[in-house]
Amino acid sequence: MGTKKLGKQTLAFVAPPTIAGYASVVGKKEGQGPLAGAFDLINQDDSFGESSWEKAESTMQRMALETALDKAGQSPSGLDLLFAGDLLNQCIASSFAARGQDVSFLGLYGACSTMAEGLALAAMALDGGFGERAAAVASSHFCSAERQYRTPLEYGGQRTPTAQWTVTGAGACVLTCQGTGPCITHATLGKVIDKGIKDANNMGAAMAPAACDTLAAHFSDTGRRPSDYDLIVTGDLGELGKSIVLDLFRSDGVELPNYDDCGVMIFDLPAQDVHCGGSGCGCSAVVLNGYLLRGMAAGRWKKILFCGTGALLSPISSLQGESIPGICHAVAISTGKGG
Amino acid sequence: MGTKKLGKQTLAFVAPPTIAGYASVVGKKEGQGPLAGAFDLINQDDSFGESSWEKAESTMQRMALETALDKAGQSPSGLDLLFAGDLLNQCIASSFAARGQDVSFLGLYGACSTMAEGLALAAMALDGGFGERAAAVASSHFCSAERQYRTPLEYGGQRTPTAQWTVTGAGACVLTCQGTGPCITHATLGKVIDKGIKDANNMGAAMAPAACDTLAAHFSDTGRRPSDYDLIVTGDLGELGKSIVLDLFRSDGVELPNYDDCGVMIFDLPAQDVHCGGSGCGCSAVVLNGYLLRGMAAGRWKKILFCGTGALLSPISSLQGESIPGICHAVAISTGKGG
Repeated sequence: MGTKKLGKQTLAFVAPPTIAGYASVVGKKEGQGPLAGAFDLINQDDSFGESSWEKAESTMQRMALETALDKAGQSPSGLDLLFAGDLLNQCIASSFAARGQDVSFLGLYGACSTMAEGLALAAMALDGGFGERAAAVASSHFCSAERQYRTPLEYGGQRTPTAQWTVTGAGACVLTCQGTGPCITHATLGKVIDKGIKDANNMGAAMAPAACDTLAAHFSDTGRRPSDYDLIVTGDLGELGKSIVLDLFRSDGVELPNYDDCGVMIFDLPAQDVHCGGSGCGCSAVVLNGYLLRGMAAGRWKKILFCGTGALLSPISSLQGESIPGICHAVAISTGKGG
Repeated sequence: MGTKKLGKQTLAFVAPPTIAGYASVVGKKEGQGPLAGAFDLINQDDSFGESSWEKAESTMQRMALETALDKAGQSPSGLDLLFAGDLLNQCIASSFAARGQDVSFLGLYGACSTMAEGLALAAMALDGGFGERAAAVASSHFCSAERQYRTPLEYGGQRTPTAQWTVTGAGACVLTCQGTGPCITHATLGKVIDKGIKDANNMGAAMAPAACDTLAAHFSDTGRRPSDYDLIVTGDLGELGKSIVLDLFRSDGVELPNYDDCGVMIFDLPAQDVHCGGSGCGCSAVVLNGYLLRGMAAGRWKKILFCGTGALLSPISSLQGESIPGICHAVAISTGKGG
């Protein structure tokens, strides 16, 4: 093996898998935000025609995967592997979306890091020789998340200033061994990092140390510098978490002028009243499979470091007084196979 | 690639990863069952010294991984990748167990198929060249599962005849690229199969069709016959699910005299009053990483087909009237590298 592993946490793909198709499906509020023009489908009805929010989320996943497969010229049965995950208890959005599909299914739980985790595993599977095509899908829904993690919508609970708004959206990305287009050159797989933050309404602060840990590992493992990327983007740290990442790197003497966060990008802050920004598995999934990959196709960026960030808490762990473990997986995407 | 993929769903490892260490940690009831002598640690106190059942489950995971790493002569920092999952909302048993460990963490949700899913992905990572050592861990706890899926223990709810008993236990398996010992030769990754079963107290019936689907795919993809294995074992179908698998194969003219189920093996039916048998991620995890791998070491079996079975429901999906999707991932384990 040798060259496939760099340092302790980074994988370097020998035959970087290509992104053959990608799609993003979002709800009404996301369609009113600054990235509206970059999504494949904006539904004005967040129920997506279903009788429950959970079923709506499954429907979004199916629509996103179908659209991404269409763009890749494939059917589900043309996929070798499907990696998917979401935030719901027992990840039912993903398993019900995959029900009846003619494809091997591997369920993930990486909280909001799921899109990056799925992309990394899909790329590993293809570069490892275990298939020709694999897809990664992730989703979240404001209404299913709100009642599960916090209170029923009807309760009208107040939100604290550091709170974030769970994105209603699903993203899907289809990778292939062959073809042209942006490809996945590296993946840096994160550790579970917990700096003791206990406020479940301040997930940006809980996840920022994990983002910094994985970013530092990526640069150390690869010998790359932040300036080697046109854009470094975290998943859903929000305004506060983003400022913590900038502060932590600055305290090490590193400036990150090319750094942004999907949770900050997806909504118009503060006009859309989402406090610190967007969050949820769907946040980074739709920004990547909408705005970022379209931007790469348009030549706006050549090299992106996409860092999915996840807060690995549950309502029960918080009620039991636990702090919030965070994780971050980074995936390097390049328009050139040379990486 | 070519030879690494057989048929639609099966992976054949070119350099089959070796099982370097394995361990099983269980609770009191499991320690009173017929497999008691095969577990590494039996705790008489199911709280494992912790203040909540969820924390007890995390502790079991840590103990199982530490023991398996000890046997493999490794520390957590010697691992390249850790794959782990459980049944709790947001998989907190796994993420809190991995907190602070010096290893890249990939969270899984495969319900009770998690040990097989983790083994398959760990084997893919190593055979793909992405590291030298990887571990798979899975757990369940009767008390954390009961109050999450059904009712608080204090409620004393009645159990229906088809119900199963969630195993309190965690299993860990450490794979390496080098070394001697049993190795993972194939993995057949399952689809999400749903035949319309809606009774959440009859998970054996819900999962049995998925087990049959994956077993049929395995035999078709590999050209192997059931008799090529000394033992074919499903994860937690219980007595009823096991009989359904036997019936379905018999209706196709295939007898499976060498077939058993971890959920049937782990308890003394009916003496231990667990109705149809054991269930939970921990069930197949501790039977594999206790009884089965010890049996292979002792020469009892040379080739095993280990089939993790998962019911991908949640309490919410059942309340919303949904049926129960099932999944099964099969992993072929052989004492000879030739497979």
